[in-house]
Amino acid sequence: MEAVVASKPVIKVAAISGSLRKASFNRGLIRTDLEVDGKFPPAVEAFRQKILESDSILFASPEYNYSLTAPLKNALDWASRPPNVWADKAAAIVSAGGGFGGARSHYHLRQVGVFLDLHFINKPEFYLNAFQPPAKFDSDGNLIDEDSKERMKQVLLSLQAFTLRLQPKN
Amino acid sequence: MEAVVASKPVIKVAAISGSLRKASFNRGLIRTDLEVDGKFPPAVEAFRQKILESDSILFASPEYNYSLTAPLKNALDWASRPPNVWADKAAAIVSAGGGFGGARSHYHLRQVGVFLDLHFINKPEFYLNAFQPPAKFDSDGNLIDEDSKERMKQVLLSLQAFTLRLQPKN
Amino acid sequence: MEAVVASKPVIKVAAISGSLRKASFNRGLIRTDLEVDGKFPPAVEAFRQKILESDSILFASPEYNYSLTAPLKNALDWASRPPNVWADKAAAIVSAGGGFGGARSHYHLRQVGVFLDLHFINKPEFYLNAFQPPAKFDSDGNLIDEDSKERMKQVLLSLQAFTLRLQPKN
Amino acid sequence: MEAVVASKPVIKVAAISGSLRKASFNRGLIRTDLEVDGKFPPAVEAFRQKILESDSILFASPEYNYSLTAPLKNALDWASRPPNVWADKAAAIVSAGGGFGGARSHYHLRQVGVFLDLHFINKPEFYLNAFQPPAKFDSDGNLIDEDSKERMKQVLLSLQAFTLRLQPKN
Repeated sequence: MEAVVASKPVIKVAAISGSLRKASFNRGLIRTDLEVDGKFPPAVEAFRQKILESDSILFASPEYNYSLTAPLKNALDWASRPPNVWADKAAAIVSAGGGFGGARSHYHLRQVGVFLDLHFINKPEFYLNAFQPPAKFDSDGNLIDEDSKERMKQVLLSLQAFTLRLQPKN
Repeated sequence: MEAVVASKPVIKVAAISGSLRKASFNRGLIRTDLEVDGKFPPAVEAFRQKILESDSILFASPEYNYSLTAPLKNALDWASRPPNVWADKAAAIVSAGGGFGGARSHYHLRQVGVFLDLHFINKPEFYLNAFQPPAKFDSDGNLIDEDSKERMKQVLLSLQAFTLRLQPKN
Repeated sequence: MEAVVASKPVIKVAAISGSLRKASFNRGLIRTDLEVDGKFPPAVEAFRQKILESDSILFASPEYNYSLTAPLKNALDWASRPPNVWADKAAAIVSAGGGFGGARSHYHLRQVGVFLDLHFINKPEFYLNAFQPPAKFDSDGNLIDEDSKERMKQVLLSLQAFTLRLQPKN
Repeated sequence: MEAVVASKPVIKVAAISGSLRKASFNRGLIRTDLEVDGKFPPAVEAFRQKILESDSILFASPEYNYSLTAPLKNALDWASRPPNVWADKAAAIVSAGGGFGGARSHYHLRQVGVFLDLHFINKPEFYLNAFQPPAKFDSDGNLIDEDSKERMKQVLLSLQAFTLRLQPKN
């Protein structure tokens, strides 16, 4: 999770991976374009503080059994405790996996977001079938497919634009 | 469907009822606070034009069999044909009915909205159990319950605020 | 919609297409393995009667705007009017289309089925991306892809088995 | 989680609570009618073994942030690892809470069940608003409301009947 410096103006994006596997594809997605420290904060408070300081949230939401992962749901629930630190932030979802590339988890996460008061971008959606040729990730879990990298970039640009659009007018 | 004049600045809200029954509770919700002509436009083109001219959309979305009504889905589909006239508009959902007051239809409509590129407000949600005392509607289908009218007003104010927030900065 | 004669024992399957287009892929799916007369019954009553006489239901449920089609929802709603003729029947869903091949409509239909009291098979799921090579349909809309035909057959066998399993023990 | 001895024939029901709070309403629901030891098994293997030995599953699925709880999702995921021990079992869902009494979690759990191959009963659904008068639980978390106890009993009878119906014919 970490700040991303976009062209201009600067906005802070918290990038959260729902996977605990070290070389997970879903972490790889975030690592591509964002510098990520790759570990969950040691304490819930530190986690909540990072969310609070962010302007928007990028979720890497893998699909387990047609829904969210338990670790991601856990993180969502911790940070929702009053005061709910997700409230009124812009957000986007990305995922990689087999089948639909994780898409079923997106729609469950979006429903959670209604209660948490997250404002998700609608487009582009990003769910990547990681197992169809050509290879999407290298052996370290880095996204290497150029088309996917471009689509990932479009997600980040859309999130940046939506974040700025939601900010107060001067 | 019709323009609503909010305090200031003025925004145009298209109010769409998913119910075809004349005295439907869901039409009653819209009639309360908005002047509604109460009929669907004779032609799809006229309907599309009204959506196009609106800044935001208020859906009265009753729940039939745990999902959207067929007439509402029909209207959504017509107006989505290229060019999709729903694109990038703010929106809110209200409903009345038994059980959860129509809420299950909201979450299906929100998923439709991801594809249509509608930006729904998150809060407040408005789904009204029309059959629990005290009486919520009079025999003409007008909303008469003061608490519900106040909640309905909060939906409209939230929709107005979100609509303005999404508009371009000068 | 029509009776299918399975190996043994014989069960009756009502096959319903959510698409109104003549050469729709979703109709093609049903035509492959079932003799379908290809038209909706002229009156709701005739439609309801066919459902009533069936042991199980095969839905061809295309995805429009991330949910059910309006015509399918209409048919579901008509036949649910008391007495609900869907009640306690086995069912399966198939679809073809772009993207996820219609899968998002399946999960909405399954939620509708909770209220209608339909018992859907879980596996195999069948959603076919109609636009990825090799060609899946001929120009008349008939399913020609051998792999897809085999998967379609497995759906029908699973539906048959589940239908028989749900029948009363002697 | 534990065996329930139904009138006749005997079937084994695993009852799983998605809540970790000691006096949770959702545990209270299960305690009412079933003898529950009240603790999660120490090891995943023991948990999987209990599922495997059960004929059907009763989920107490509270709603956190409009979806499943993380602990329940965790349990679902553990027991789904190959070989998936949930496969082909009958199941039911109950919950208590504010608002809709946990119902939103049911529909997400049902979607998970498609992949896990669980066969949920459709009716009756049981979601209890725990905060509307009269009092539903005593201070120890036991269900005391007679109407709710009767509805809970109907869920168990429906689950028993569906379990037997799905069993092989002799």
